[in-house]
Parts: sequence; C-alpha cells; structure tokens
Amino acid sequence: MPETTQQLYFSYCDIMQKAADVNYASAVLGWDQETYMPPKGADARGRQLSTLAGQAHEILTSDKLEQLLKELSTRGDLNDIGKNNVRLSREDFEKNKKLTPAFVEELTKQTSECFNAWIEARKKNDFSVFAPSLSKMVALKRKQAEMYGYKVHPYDALADDYEKGITVAVLDPVFAGIREQLPPILDKIKAAVQVDDTFFYRHFPKGQQWEFSLDVLKSMGFDFEAGRQDYSEHPFTTSFAPSDVRLTTRVDENNYASMLWSCIHEGGHGLYEQGLPEDQYGLPLGSAASLGIHESQSRIWENCIGRGLDFWKFFYPKLQARFPEQLTDVTAEAFFKASNKVEPSLIRTEADELTYHFHVMIRYEIEKQLIEGSLDVKDLPAKWNELYRQYLGITPPDDKSGVLQDVHWSHGSFGYFPTYTLGSFYAAQFYAQAQKDIPNLLKQVSNGELAELLQWLWEKVHRHGRRFTSEELCERITGQKLDPSFFIRYIQDKYMGIYGI
Amino acid sequence: MPETTQQLYFSYCDIMQKAADVNYASAVLGWDQETYMPPKGADARGRQLSTLAGQAHEILTSDKLEQLLKELSTRGDLNDIGKNNVRLSREDFEKNKKLTPAFVEELTKQTSECFNAWIEARKKNDFSVFAPSLSKMVALKRKQAEMYGYKVHPYDALADDYEKGITVAVLDPVFAGIREQLPPILDKIKAAVQVDDTFFYRHFPKGQQWEFSLDVLKSMGFDFEAGRQDYSEHPFTTSFAPSDVRLTTRVDENNYASMLWSCIHEGGHGLYEQGLPEDQYGLPLGSAASLGIHESQSRIWENCIGRGLDFWKFFYPKLQARFPEQLTDVTAEAFFKASNKVEPSLIRTEADELTYHFHVMIRYEIEKQLIEGSLDVKDLPAKWNELYRQYLGITPPDDKSGVLQDVHWSHGSFGYFPTYTLGSFYAAQFYAQAQKDIPNLLKQVSNGELAELLQWLWEKVHRHGRRFTSEELCERITGQKLDPSFFIRYIQDKYMGIYGI
Repeated sequence: MPETTQQLYFSYCDIMQKAADVNYASAVLGWDQETYMPPKGADARGRQLSTLAGQAHEILTSDKLEQLLKELSTRGDLNDIGKNNVRLSREDFEKNKKLTPAFVEELTKQTSECFNAWIEARKKNDFSVFAPSLSKMVALKRKQAEMYGYKVHPYDALADDYEKGITVAVLDPVFAGIREQLPPILDKIKAAVQVDDTFFYRHFPKGQQWEFSLDVLKSMGFDFEAGRQDYSEHPFTTSFAPSDVRLTTRVDENNYASMLWSCIHEGGHGLYEQGLPEDQYGLPLGSAASLGIHESQSRIWENCIGRGLDFWKFFYPKLQARFPEQLTDVTAEAFFKASNKVEPSLIRTEADELTYHFHVMIRYEIEKQLIEGSLDVKDLPAKWNELYRQYLGITPPDDKSGVLQDVHWSHGSFGYFPTYTLGSFYAAQFYAQAQKDIPNLLKQVSNGELAELLQWLWEKVHRHGRRFTSEELCERITGQKLDPSFFIRYIQDKYMGIYGI
Repeated sequence: MPETTQQLYFSYCDIMQKAADVNYASAVLGWDQETYMPPKGADARGRQLSTLAGQAHEILTSDKLEQLLKELSTRGDLNDIGKNNVRLSREDFEKNKKLTPAFVEELTKQTSECFNAWIEARKKNDFSVFAPSLSKMVALKRKQAEMYGYKVHPYDALADDYEKGITVAVLDPVFAGIREQLPPILDKIKAAVQVDDTFFYRHFPKGQQWEFSLDVLKSMGFDFEAGRQDYSEHPFTTSFAPSDVRLTTRVDENNYASMLWSCIHEGGHGLYEQGLPEDQYGLPLGSAASLGIHESQSRIWENCIGRGLDFWKFFYPKLQARFPEQLTDVTAEAFFKASNKVEPSLIRTEADELTYHFHVMIRYEIEKQLIEGSLDVKDLPAKWNELYRQYLGITPPDDKSGVLQDVHWSHGSFGYFPTYTLGSFYAAQFYAQAQKDIPNLLKQVSNGELAELLQWLWEKVHRHGRRFTSEELCERITGQKLDPSFFIRYIQDKYMGIYGI
C-alpha cells in the first residue's frame, strides 16, 4: 500500500529530528568542553564528539532519507511548511552527496591535523610550523570547490556553505566599498581629538560585571528559563533547542570593555536561537538562515543598540550604581564615546566597529587568492603584513599577533570570514528599517524598553528559520538588496557625534 | 581471507567503544540536566537522551557484534584481558537477547509513564495515583524475570542486573542478620545517653562548606584535573571516562551534616571511577564491578574513614579554622560523636549507618514479595507502614515520607536496593582487611595521609574493572565470602566508643 504524504513527511521529520538530537547532543558536549570540562577529559571528549558526528552523518546521508526526499518532492499535497523543509533538505542532501565519503574522511583527518599544527605554530610563534598543513588544507578546499562545482569563481562554492548563494560577484563590491569609503573616514578620525577610554581599565570586580550583564540580557528579553550564561575562555553562543540556549562570556577585572559588549553580542545570537520556531525542531525551518544573518542579530544588539547613546541614557545610571567609585567622574556621554573609540589594532576580535572590516577584508582577499591559486601559502605572512601596513598602518611584530591569530583556516573554514562583515552590513540596513517601522524606537531604547525591537526582529527574521536566504530576507525586510551604503551612513552618523567629523 | 584474532578483537573493541562514546555522551547530557540545564530545556533533553539510548542499544545488539563475540570466543590466541572482555561482553549480549525488542520498548514506555505517575503522586502526596502504573510495572518485571530465567526465585533474575550472581539465597541471610542482630544494638543505644548534634544546625556559610569539601576531596586523592564537583538537587557521581569524573553535592547552610559526608561518599564513588583502567575504555574491564562494589567504595570513605575519630584528629582543627565561631565550643570528639548519631527516622537517604539497613531490608522484603506475587501493589502502603512500625518504631505521617520516598520502583529498578546494604557490608569487610594489610592505617589517617589506603583500594578493586564478580573480589581481597559479622563488629566497636554500649 503506497504511503500517504503525511506518513512520508512524518518519516522524514523523524529522521531529521533524530539527527538533530545527535547534533544537539554534540553541542552539549562542546559547550561542556569549553565551560566546565577538566583538562584531562579532552581526549575522551574528542573521541565522543567524533563518534556522534559519525552517527549524525550516517543518518543524514542515508538512502532512506534520499528516497523520502525524492518521493516527497513529487507530492503536491504537502503544505507550505512541508514544501520548504523538503526543498531545503533536498538541497543540503544533494550538496553533501557531491563529496565522496573518502574525501570527507580525508578532510576530517586533515582538519584535525591542521588544527594541531596551528596550535603548535602559535606556541612556537612560527608560521612555518603551520604552513605545510595549511598548504594541504588549501589543496583539499580547492578540490572541494571543484567537487561542489561553481559558475564563476571556486570561492563561490565554498562560501555557499556559510552563506547560501553568496558569491565573489556579491562580495567584491562590498569589500571594494570598505577599501574605498572607510579609509577617508578613518583618516578624519585619526586627525580629530581622540576619545578617552582610560577609565575602562580601572578595577571592575568580576561579580558586579556579571550581575550587570545579566540585567542587560534580561532587559534585551533573553529568557533565562530557556537559557543561561557561563564563563569560557572565548565567548560563544550555542543552542540545544530554542528552549535551551547557552551564552558564554569572559571577564577581565582590569578592562571593562572586554566583557559587556561581548555579552550583548552573544545575547543577540541567543535571542535569534530562542526565537526559532520550536515546532520545527531539527528541520530547516527551525534553523538559522545563515551565518551572516546570525551575525546581523548579534551586531544590531551589540553595536546599533549597545553602543548607542540612547541605550546608555537608560542603562548608565544603573551601571554607575553598580560601580559608584569607578565611574563617579565619568558621564554617560563619555562612557558612550569610549565604547566607540576607533583605533587601528592588530587583533580582529578586539577591533572597533570601523577598523574591524579592514581585518575581514584582508582575510577575504587572501583566502580568495589562495583558493583561486594566485597566492601561495608560503607567501601568506608577507602578504598579510603588507595588507595590514596598507590598510591599518601597522605591522604585526610576530606571527601570533598576525597571520596566526584566527583559528578559521586551520578548520578549513574558507569563506567564513565575509559573513562577519555581511552581518554588520545587514545589521545597519535592518536597523535603519527598524527605525522606520518603529518611529519612536530611539525613545523606547532610551527608556530601556527593548521589547518592541525584539518583537520586530522575531517577526522579520527569527520566526522564519531558513525559509528565506539572506538575500531574500534582506529584500523582504528592507525592500532592497544588501546595500553597503547603510553601513557607511550608520558609521558616519555615529562618528560625527563622537569625533565631530 | 579469514581475519586474524587481533583484527577481530580490534573490530570488537571499536564497536564497544563507539557504544561507550554514545553512552558517555548521554551521561554528559544527564549531568548537565541535573546541574545547569534551564527548566524549559527539559523536553528537548528528554528526546535527545532517548535518541542516544536508541543509538547505543542498536550498536550493542547488532548482528555484527554477536558474530564477533561468537567467533572470538572460539579463538585460543586471545590474551587474558581479551578473553575476559569477550567473555563478559558475551554474557551481557546473551542476557540482553533474552528480551524481545517489543518487550524492551514496552518497558521503556512504562518506565517513563511510571516515573511521571510517581512525580504526580508525590505532588498529590497520594499513593493511589501511583498504584495503577506501579502494578503494570510489577507485572512487566515479573515477565522480565521469566524471560531472563532463574533457578530458584524470580527476584534472582532481576537482582542479577545490578549485582551479577546475587540471589535471594545469598541475600536472605544478610537481611536475616540485620533483623536479628541490629535491633538489640539499637535498643541499647536508645537506652544510652544521647549524642548532641545541635551544633550542626548553626549557620555554616555555603562558600566555606564548599571550600572545606574540596580540601577533603583533594586529601582523599580525587584528581581535580580529571574531575570536578558541582551543585545539584540530589548528590550523585557520573563519569565520562576515568579522566573526567563528575561529583555533585548540595549545601544546606543551616545543617552542616547535609553536605560533608555526602561529598566524601560521592568522592569514594569518584575515586573508583578515576581508578578504572583507561586503556580498557568502553570494555567490561574498564567498567565498575557492580553496584554493590561501587557502594563499598563510597561507604568505606564516608563511614569507615569519614565518620572515624582518627580522621577528625587531623581534619577537625582545619574545619574549626574555617568555622571558628560556629565550632568554638565543640571538641573533635563531640563532632565525631555527632556525626555518628543514631536515631530511627523516616527517610532512608538521611538515616544513620545503623538504621539505614532497616530501610533497605524493608524494601527488599517488599519487592521480593511483589515479584514473587505474594504481595499486591494495593496493599503496599499498609505493608510499608507496618514494617516501619515494627523495625524503626515510627509510622510515616503520609505517603510522601513513606512509600513514595524513593524513585527506584518508578524506574522499574527492582533488585537495586540490596546493593546499598551489600555496599556497606563489603566496606566493613574490606576495611577490616585494609587494617590488616596496612598495619599503621589508623595512624596514617590521623595524620591526614590517605594515599596508601587509596593505593590499596586501587590495587584490590579499582584496577580490575569487571574482571571479577563482587563475590570473587571479596574472596580475593579478604580470603572469604561476604560475611555480615564484619559489619556487625564494626558497628559494635563504633557505638561502644560513642554510646558506651
């Protein structure tokens, strides 16, 4: 007896959700690894994660799933949600199938080797320790691009893994904008009166920093019944379901700037995860749209809101109450200005909103050339330092604070970096739209009322899951494609107020 | 080409260790569930745990494993370790195979239903809410006993799941000893001058309790590079590998007795897990021998050591230094005596070393009768209250502090309770032997030197994993079978010093 569409769809959901169970279990193990795991637990954890990854992979590449997707694609009586889930799952399946099991195994092995080489190279502060492994990795990624296939540029095939549909043709103008429009702004800032942020480096006790960050996260609407915040060396957000979202942070008692905006940033990611539709657990419509859209959510909260003067109109008196001694001589405006201090620096993750994108642009140019074969790994440090001199005016004193600073390439994540810039640009464009859609938004923010903004983000972004690509989302929300001029305008407005440019 | 024994053994290990990876992953999820998970995460966590359990079950019941075990059992060139692993895995496999998949599914479903009914019944403080579910559970367990098969008593088949080889024939004399020999001791204690433990209920701040417990665990030899302690509602120990062992505890600031001995107890479990051979990860020789032996490790540390006067000779001055105000008027001896106060009470988990075994004996008698069919679930509360009156001289005021207090039966764990008493009895017998083998043990303990005892436990128990059954271990260590008179003597010695009986 042929099965009904509903029966088939149920089987499809069951397989997808079992794979999600295993992947979310991996996420729990990964979270514990970064937060609480004792040091000697690392080896066992590594093999446990690897086994779970194998199990999930087996489920998601099974013949049974393939047949179900094939059959369901022919069924006209699927509802709209079902159609979208099946369409997206099939695209994923077809893409995965292009890689042979032997290639996947080789890539997994090389990733592990390459990551260890990176760790070792950082310890020795010597890129040459990393170079041979990275060369092999680049060769594999070039091979992967060929296996995936592409129309114009091999980089397109890889970047698509992180941002569906993104291509060099889209990215080049974005980064050209950065190269052309940001340097004049930076020059003006350099020439202006500098901002004082020395009070960030007074002593801010850990416990009070922690408490204030919880206050802010609660005000943002983060649901602590469906999530929590813990410490880790590197802040991150992970999710085991929309009902269980974990944020992590770190605290430096002698640098207040280290924690707070990072908490707000992760909170933005967390709100997205909490806002995904729970009834689509494990299905495409229950997952985030893309890395770029994810980053737009963290950046809109961290930068557009959390580094805005209106935000601090409400929150600064509360902060001062927590740190009366440390902030007695600091006004809300001075605090706001300090949080937006622009200064070219070596490390991407510590960069301000403006120079950050030079860091990304440099990585984008380099990895594009590596993948097209016009740059050799051995010439990478020289290229890196040349670009840093050119765009940031500084030269890394060593590999660790230069070409070895990011983990991404050791993971084989070529095409990932641009999503950081896309995120900021989407954030600026969405934020401009939010101000149109919610006319008194700034007034609300200055009263600490953030609920309508969160509702807007949920309505426009969170609830859709992966239904729309980032491009489609952007057009639906703002009526036009991604347009870097929103970011440029946002930056100009902000720094006009701060540096008088 | 036929495979070599080594190749086959390697395949066997690979399967077993993959299953262990999945089961340890479940343990991580379970640990997080009890320590950090936000409340709304419960549903997703439930389904994730259920999927992982299914994955592990599939691996451990695969035809491939069965064939490997069959073939390896015929190979004469396996080394001693290999032979023992294969023998034990085959026993497990054969036992599991006796249950049909349909039965396992039914049991799993009923367990979940029964647990929820128990929660509900406790909320309503009404056994009748639990009774129908429990009746079904008892029927299933009786069926399970028939499927497993047994020689003498159906209870033997079930108890074997927790303590290999244990039978009613072994347990009856143990509990007869409790029924006959403990009441006269209890009567003497009741007639003696009572011990004062009121100072336990002074205010002991959480942080200092925590710090002291870490000091004690470190002195015991618990490796905090390979484990940690966290808070949970009910203290427990879990392990993700010998290199990652998690203890949990709870703190009551107004009852010092609530935390410390529980920490030492869990620490004893933890030391066993840390002492299992790491190179036998996922294999029988890398697992604990039985629940009874596990409990012997926690009880030897908690009671024989941690409630001994010699222990406090060393640790009491340190405790006093942490709580100078609270303990200024309390001597080491008074503290030691208070930690051993005997008083019949309603709740098993809060009982002293002596009356504890009445609680277990009562449960044993009841579940034996349920399984053999001589007691009906509807008559359970009456039976319970009658036995409590008879042996402890008290009657539970309600079901919650009576027949509904333990979770075990809702889980279908019939045959589990006796392992608590076996643990204490093994502990007393091992402890007597340790004092023979380490002549100056008490002197060492009174100097805070616990390393030689740990080394002895590792040598005699931990390093063997499941190689020996608890009975075999007991004979190897002490030269004789389990003999309850060791426990009786231990108890008499202890209370002679405290109550002068």
